[in-house]
Amino acid sequence: MKPNSLKFRQTVLATLVAAACSSPAMASKTVSWEDILNDDKTTTDVLSYGLGLKAQRYSPLTRINTKNVDNLVPAWSFSFGGEKQRGQEAQALVHDGVIYVTASYSRIFAIDARSGKRLWEYEARLPEDIRPCCDVVNRGAAIYGDKIYFGTLDASIVALNKDTGKVAWKKKFGDHKIGYTMTGAPFVVKDQKSGKVLLVHGSSGDEFGVVGWLFARDPDTGEEVWARPMVEGHMGRLNGQDSTPTGDAKAPSWPEGPDGKKVDAWNHGGGAPWQTASYDVEKNMVVIGAGNPAPWNTWHRTKEGDDPRNWDSLFTSGQAYVDASTGELKGFFQHTPNDAWDFSGNNSVVLFEYKDPKTGKLVKASAHADRNGFFFVTDREKLTNGAGYPNKPTSLIGAWPFVEGITWASGFDLKTGKPIEKGNRPQLPKDGAEKGESIFVSPPFLGGTNWMPMSYSQKTELFYIPANHWAMDYWTEKLTYKAGNAYLGQGFRIKRLFDDHVGTLRAMDPKTGKIVWEHKEKFPLWAGTMTTAGGLVFTGTSDGYVKAFDAKNGKELWKFQTGSGVVSVPITWEMDGEQYIGIQSGYGGAVPLWGGDMADLTKQVTQGGSMWVFKLPKGFKG
Amino acid sequence: MKPNSLKFRQTVLATLVAAACSSPAMASKTVSWEDILNDDKTTTDVLSYGLGLKAQRYSPLTRINTKNVDNLVPAWSFSFGGEKQRGQEAQALVHDGVIYVTASYSRIFAIDARSGKRLWEYEARLPEDIRPCCDVVNRGAAIYGDKIYFGTLDASIVALNKDTGKVAWKKKFGDHKIGYTMTGAPFVVKDQKSGKVLLVHGSSGDEFGVVGWLFARDPDTGEEVWARPMVEGHMGRLNGQDSTPTGDAKAPSWPEGPDGKKVDAWNHGGGAPWQTASYDVEKNMVVIGAGNPAPWNTWHRTKEGDDPRNWDSLFTSGQAYVDASTGELKGFFQHTPNDAWDFSGNNSVVLFEYKDPKTGKLVKASAHADRNGFFFVTDREKLTNGAGYPNKPTSLIGAWPFVEGITWASGFDLKTGKPIEKGNRPQLPKDGAEKGESIFVSPPFLGGTNWMPMSYSQKTELFYIPANHWAMDYWTEKLTYKAGNAYLGQGFRIKRLFDDHVGTLRAMDPKTGKIVWEHKEKFPLWAGTMTTAGGLVFTGTSDGYVKAFDAKNGKELWKFQTGSGVVSVPITWEMDGEQYIGIQSGYGGAVPLWGGDMADLTKQVTQGGSMWVFKLPKGFKG
Repeated sequence: MKPNSLKFRQTVLATLVAAACSSPAMASKTVSWEDILNDDKTTTDVLSYGLGLKAQRYSPLTRINTKNVDNLVPAWSFSFGGEKQRGQEAQALVHDGVIYVTASYSRIFAIDARSGKRLWEYEARLPEDIRPCCDVVNRGAAIYGDKIYFGTLDASIVALNKDTGKVAWKKKFGDHKIGYTMTGAPFVVKDQKSGKVLLVHGSSGDEFGVVGWLFARDPDTGEEVWARPMVEGHMGRLNGQDSTPTGDAKAPSWPEGPDGKKVDAWNHGGGAPWQTASYDVEKNMVVIGAGNPAPWNTWHRTKEGDDPRNWDSLFTSGQAYVDASTGELKGFFQHTPNDAWDFSGNNSVVLFEYKDPKTGKLVKASAHADRNGFFFVTDREKLTNGAGYPNKPTSLIGAWPFVEGITWASGFDLKTGKPIEKGNRPQLPKDGAEKGESIFVSPPFLGGTNWMPMSYSQKTELFYIPANHWAMDYWTEKLTYKAGNAYLGQGFRIKRLFDDHVGTLRAMDPKTGKIVWEHKEKFPLWAGTMTTAGGLVFTGTSDGYVKAFDAKNGKELWKFQTGSGVVSVPITWEMDGEQYIGIQSGYGGAVPLWGGDMADLTKQVTQGGSMWVFKLPKGFKG
Repeated sequence: MKPNSLKFRQTVLATLVAAACSSPAMASKTVSWEDILNDDKTTTDVLSYGLGLKAQRYSPLTRINTKNVDNLVPAWSFSFGGEKQRGQEAQALVHDGVIYVTASYSRIFAIDARSGKRLWEYEARLPEDIRPCCDVVNRGAAIYGDKIYFGTLDASIVALNKDTGKVAWKKKFGDHKIGYTMTGAPFVVKDQKSGKVLLVHGSSGDEFGVVGWLFARDPDTGEEVWARPMVEGHMGRLNGQDSTPTGDAKAPSWPEGPDGKKVDAWNHGGGAPWQTASYDVEKNMVVIGAGNPAPWNTWHRTKEGDDPRNWDSLFTSGQAYVDASTGELKGFFQHTPNDAWDFSGNNSVVLFEYKDPKTGKLVKASAHADRNGFFFVTDREKLTNGAGYPNKPTSLIGAWPFVEGITWASGFDLKTGKPIEKGNRPQLPKDGAEKGESIFVSPPFLGGTNWMPMSYSQKTELFYIPANHWAMDYWTEKLTYKAGNAYLGQGFRIKRLFDDHVGTLRAMDPKTGKIVWEHKEKFPLWAGTMTTAGGLVFTGTSDGYVKAFDAKNGKELWKFQTGSGVVSVPITWEMDGEQYIGIQSGYGGAVPLWGGDMADLTKQVTQGGSMWVFKLPKGFKG
């Protein structure tokens, strides 16, 4: 043993830490489909991303409530360890006294929910040449049977025995060298026709010019059941065979070039469904947001000399309804046709019902707050009925701005479902110029909101959107596709919109589009929200706080400083007669990498990587 | 901006995080010598390593006490950030509402004590070829005037403006390439003769064969006032000139080789005073532990064919009393003569007084729990009187084992001050063999205790020693000195001593040598202790807990799981009418690097890096 250099000891320590570490296997309860189906109602576990199939992130728990939340204290914390920090963006799961949480660099931990003790850890061995656009994050796992599932940055999905952390299977679904990756949490649904439970997940990689795919797999073996590409005219698969093209085989929403062939962008067209689905059990429909078209540059997806508004780049930047039995795209509503701003359409599509204030009838709707600044309520019945071309007729019920200062559109035409654009597309470079003229755009591509999921309270009937006010200077750049390189065709610089704040947590009434309350934050909001029957909204802030608000009026009732930025998603559950709140701390994600002036602002935030669990103090009465 | 590779983005992020980040300068109170002198009595600040010049780590605070400590909750946490974790071994300082805490990789943070917000951070730019033997730790800072002082792994000491974090001066005191480094906290004393305040600090590096030095500097400029080498016969410095040799100029405790010159080991003899001093104001004496002789191999420091017990390798592995005015070595008691086991003698020498049970007279004593397993009480008056050869006459009052199973000595002869050895020195390799025969040794070189400081309660009159039960297989190896290489000449493997525990927190009566109580831990104890007038002992555990014990009987009254191993030193202070406890979490140090079977045991502990602050809950009554 020769302590001859720091490097030597770093290697030693790295080896120690990377070594698999598993406690003796414990036989514990398995997770059934019924458990998942009832996840939104049961309080002792958290079995799905979204805290239920509708992704409402609403808990019926009331023990912690507006009256006592200011007494909340940490029960324990757990450090993800390693010399690996960066962004911690996951939502944890809880089952049978065990917390399953993913962490940066494709790691997953099973932690004893009572003590904070690590039960096992799995860390993917990542190749050097992975291409995550927006930090080495992971957003969570799925659980079913005796297995835990999560995606890795080298475009794989892994199934692990939930009690031991041992790999059951691992499937690579794309070439990480050209940009395929996986950061979203997978999701479990049950095909109501065949009775087969399916593991659904998407790919990431729109910034590198890959076609986005949604996959359904046998959770036991990992074998693909169906796969759906999100670029119009690309061919799907079912049971290992070609199935149907996505939309129209001729892809009329993508132009041909002068040579009569589809423009090159169509081959690399993006639309990655990189976040997590929700599921309409009644209609057997997987609901998922589709990513931005690739490249970002609108003119690569517009017929030369034509108006970009004539070319929709389907099925990107919208909400997709995919048949769980076949993987066919049945319905689609596009939030940003021919998206010129990287608004994408990925973030959560929440399923909810409400009584129409005029007719008194129950409306089955979907809600989505888009990076483009608009909050959409769509008619889920129309979108799931599966008749005809999936982007017509319009299913739009309402589209309201949820942030100030939107520059690209003044609103949406409810008859056509199309935005009323304000001429804010960046123009092509003038003859001889390398770059187009810079224009001012708000929201910027980082979005009015982003990946961080909103929540919906069945009690207040409001949505709680983690939103941001910011903008960008934006210009076109020349571009040709090169495998593995960024495929944008745009340049940008993120800027401030208001002096006093960036983040704005907003409560939105989905029946009226009214902002009922807002809470401002100096730093960007990059954490999801959760709401409870206790009348609370929980979220985290980039300057390290976990916070609770009164769901009715937005009053800040409690905060705790965790030491690094909080950009993850809160959960809650009940155990031994007490209610717990769980969330991760660890700053990172897209903002410090791409956030321009906002990246500068958040330089003062230190990195971290830990799970935090809160409860009312020992012996608390009241 | 091209998101073309993970490496690129890692570099981007590393740059962002490494960037200096300082808030606007705030004018705040400066720290006077009187503030430091009274540190053990004042409750609103922590101004010295040891919580006072005597290093007793005793606080008169009683708000948190045996009755209410089980209600303690975190007030906030702060993440040290970076992709730099490893061991966090510091003791923090508190002044004027600001916490100053050092972290792994030679970092120091100023944190708002109320909010946990970072005020500034300084990170030394470390060269690649540093040689810290036992992790990239730092044990704390010193404060005086408007400056904060701490040591860096490249053998430098840095002074920073305490309000801005800007470097005031930086002094390199040794060549890091040959093994000089600095991990201990510096210490501020005041030469009672000249009235000059001095910044005292030592060097580290005994495992690489460098001579250990103790330095005193002008805290304003960093200029050396005096310097004292710890190997007998080496020459000291005073005001830039040669002063006096350490001990006898002829170094009779080191043998000559067959060539008539001192053995080569004498040139590289170790004795580094790498921990922090205490200070006897009355006698104007800096009290410091001296490290192990180099190399570890006893035969390199023994005259060929002679008994090692005839060669003491002075002034190593003992407690040293150094005149604050001149840097002269005035007194010395050696815990392990001709140390064959790397027991060293560094850890805290605590100054205390007690009434002799027989005579009723006040005894001014020093207490030290050594890695060699014995707890020493020495006569401080004898040791500070400065007459004659510093290792004679014996000043030993008592030497009692504080751990079980000591193999190397059965006890100490109070007349001679020498150990009664049990023939447990590893023997030279037999002719032709590369290694000596392996022997079983307990404690192992990791010690019955180690660097982690004990505390002394003025209330219970007990010492609280963070101790460990373990052992090692141990054998000699052939060795020649090569600059920058490990200089041990020994091989080892750390092993278990008992099945049920490693750590044992022990309360020792310094008048009788009786173990009044003990608390066992499954994992090694590697955190310091602190005790309070509230009747409590605080410490941390390698499996992540901060714990509080009843100082009278060792009953565990409270624990909190921080998520990574706790191997730092607790502090306490009062602010806004509340009492706070501060400690850092972040596993590392020597055990995971050198701990053999114990390193394996602690593999399950994740790394971390955070400051934790605890208090009674909001609105707590009782």
